Amino acid sequence: MKRSGIITLLTDFGLVDPYVAMMKGVILSINPNAVIVDISHSIMTGGIAQASDMIKETYPFFPRGTVHIAVVDPGVGSDRRLLGIEAEGHFFVGPDNGIFWPIIKDYKKALAIQLTEKRYFLPHVTSTFHGRDVFAPVAAHLSLGEDLMQMGARIYNPVEITLPSPTVTGDSLYGEITRIDNFGNLITNIRRQGLEDFLKKSKPVIYIGNLEIRKIADTYFDVEGGEPLALINSSGLLEIAVNLGRASEYSGLRPDEIVGTVVRVLKGGRISKR
Amino acid sequence: MKRSGIITLLTDFGLVDPYVAMMKGVILSINPNAVIVDISHSIMTGGIAQASDMIKETYPFFPRGTVHIAVVDPGVGSDRRLLGIEAEGHFFVGPDNGIFWPIIKDYKKALAIQLTEKRYFLPHVTSTFHGRDVFAPVAAHLSLGEDLMQMGARIYNPVEITLPSPTVTGDSLYGEITRIDNFGNLITNIRRQGLEDFLKKSKPVIYIGNLEIRKIADTYFDVEGGEPLALINSSGLLEIAVNLGRASEYSGLRPDEIVGTVVRVLKGGRISKR
Amino acid sequence: MKRSGIITLLTDFGLVDPYVAMMKGVILSINPNAVIVDISHSIMTGGIAQASDMIKETYPFFPRGTVHIAVVDPGVGSDRRLLGIEAEGHFFVGPDNGIFWPIIKDYKKALAIQLTEKRYFLPHVTSTFHGRDVFAPVAAHLSLGEDLMQMGARIYNPVEITLPSPTVTGDSLYGEITRIDNFGNLITNIRRQGLEDFLKKSKPVIYIGNLEIRKIADTYFDVEGGEPLALINSSGLLEIAVNLGRASEYSGLRPDEIVGTVVRVLKGGRISKR
Repeated sequence: MKRSGIITLLTDFGLVDPYVAMMKGVILSINPNAVIVDISHSIMTGGIAQASDMIKETYPFFPRGTVHIAVVDPGVGSDRRLLGIEAEGHFFVGPDNGIFWPIIKDYKKALAIQLTEKRYFLPHVTSTFHGRDVFAPVAAHLSLGEDLMQMGARIYNPVEITLPSPTVTGDSLYGEITRIDNFGNLITNIRRQGLEDFLKKSKPVIYIGNLEIRKIADTYFDVEGGEPLALINSSGLLEIAVNLGRASEYSGLRPDEIVGTVVRVLKGGRISKR
Repeated sequence: MKRSGIITLLTDFGLVDPYVAMMKGVILSINPNAVIVDISHSIMTGGIAQASDMIKETYPFFPRGTVHIAVVDPGVGSDRRLLGIEAEGHFFVGPDNGIFWPIIKDYKKALAIQLTEKRYFLPHVTSTFHGRDVFAPVAAHLSLGEDLMQMGARIYNPVEITLPSPTVTGDSLYGEITRIDNFGNLITNIRRQGLEDFLKKSKPVIYIGNLEIRKIADTYFDVEGGEPLALINSSGLLEIAVNLGRASEYSGLRPDEIVGTVVRVLKGGRISKR
Repeated sequence: MKRSGIITLLTDFGLVDPYVAMMKGVILSINPNAVIVDISHSIMTGGIAQASDMIKETYPFFPRGTVHIAVVDPGVGSDRRLLGIEAEGHFFVGPDNGIFWPIIKDYKKALAIQLTEKRYFLPHVTSTFHGRDVFAPVAAHLSLGEDLMQMGARIYNPVEITLPSPTVTGDSLYGEITRIDNFGNLITNIRRQGLEDFLKKSKPVIYIGNLEIRKIADTYFDVEGGEPLALINSSGLLEIAVNLGRASEYSGLRPDEIVGTVVRVLKGGRISKR
């Protein structure tokens, strides 16, 4: 596969320590023409599920042949495996701790390689920083066109993680809030298709915290400023928002309890033609 | 106009959400050679005036032919227009909410285009993320040399904003503090020229909070460590500082009240020759 | 020396002000092909020692011929000198306030030049922002292959700083904690070699806060989750950590007192063959 020359970086390293810069130095020492893009370094420490969501949301916007490094790696130094993946025309490099499972799961033809060929690593691999010593150099070599299959043997049992997924129970569709964005919007794990399949032609009644919302809006401006609404957001997910305001403050939920809060959808009356 | 290949990004998206990375992916998918520079993603949510100041302060330091994206866009999804501007040899892309008004106002030959040609957008434009679906692809196409005038029709009534500007009333020049920088310096909206025009050959007496300053210093070191001073800063604006200290803490002003605080300048005695 | 085209940036400017973006604009205006890498902009205001550590830890991971700008410059506007350094095949540009002393000290052949040739600066040099007006343009010119020795005269007395270094007193090796990383790991200033020289073949007994640790582990996983350990980290420094936890919280030390806390190492019994 042709390579884009782009390498993305997602870590839980923060912006104060020297770790991200070291990885970039390693990458540019191997591929001086690599274009490095930071996805985020503000993943919660050890937040594998959060990182997993972030990769899955962002990678499709990059050109095919891009290499995506994800280092949220609480198991560094244990016997957890080192992983290289090729899926949907993209490469993914990081620890085998489930961080890439949502991508592998959705793409049957994904190729997962356990990275073992030390010639693609730094000469000295420490036990505490595989991001710098293994994943950065492997990604740099991949960005130069090296063959992932030369880097180790194929595995068929990558570590799986279970992300909360929406369920239909009785008359209700249950999902949950997975994150609060910078604007106070509450992002849920209910996808457009799942919602439509559940509602069929009915109107929704959505319950979350002390809110009851009876419509899927097209834009924030379908309601007055300061009013709550639900819509399908730019990632195809059900989002609870407040026009020109912060749903996180309006919802009556305690800030530290918002993520994980259940969202319940019921069928209201039929949508009447007007 | 020749293009520099550089695209700058200014948003209120923060560093935790996937939104900035998505925009970068879109840009690099269209122009793989684009050089993307982050101005800041820490603009206060919806802070149009703050973003406006930031663009105006930074763009002149980039080469002509650079494209500057600014996405502080509380009106996304309403009928606010999508704007592309050419001014002073630079391009500006973002919502028509006044964010670019200070640039348009100062440059009579500015060309403002309402972006309507969908072939420069992503194929599917969502109602909640025009930064990714419109502004990023438009900027990428501009960076490749596309003609702004092909992207829509010219408009002559871009949205204006009123930024607080200094006024002379009676014997006083009044300005205000527009931001506190990372060093606790208090940046005002009084420009060098306005100050000189007001003072003529007189010495200044500057009042701000509980401070009275009677001189425009050349450098922080014109006073002892821990002492307050006023100077014309590197952007040509009157700044109140404390040598080797933080004016924001020294001023006696409440932190949340500093921005917007009035700065009053009076004429002192004549500057004597010494 | 051949140039890598890479310029790294380390400052105490934070991510909200326009200062970093201005420097990048200046660099790209002079060298449009420069590859700019942010080391960090979150150095504590005026934190020369912290910045000094950061440079020394990160620069060796970049290719030779890279230019490293460090702007932690509380003395800007005073008579402190402007410095350009060539050492170990790298260039360093910043204020002469000791920030580069650890690099100069360790490398006898370091060349230190007092930057005075104004043709490498911006046309107008302000008294408050030498990062933008001097260091950015000088670095850009160096990245293009300009000769450092043309930029001023050699000096032999760069400002020195004293960083705390480990000492052996009586039966003890004393070091201290120099930083807490994003994972709550406590990084000390005791290097592997110094520790081995002190311990010879003995086991260590390490005291820090209320912790007593009797072994140098190979990885975090040498102990159970939630247990404390000591190891030599990826930078070759003694580090106190908690497997799958935060040593900073486990240590019994007050958060604001951790940096600077003394680490004491004693010799335990001989390492027995098993």
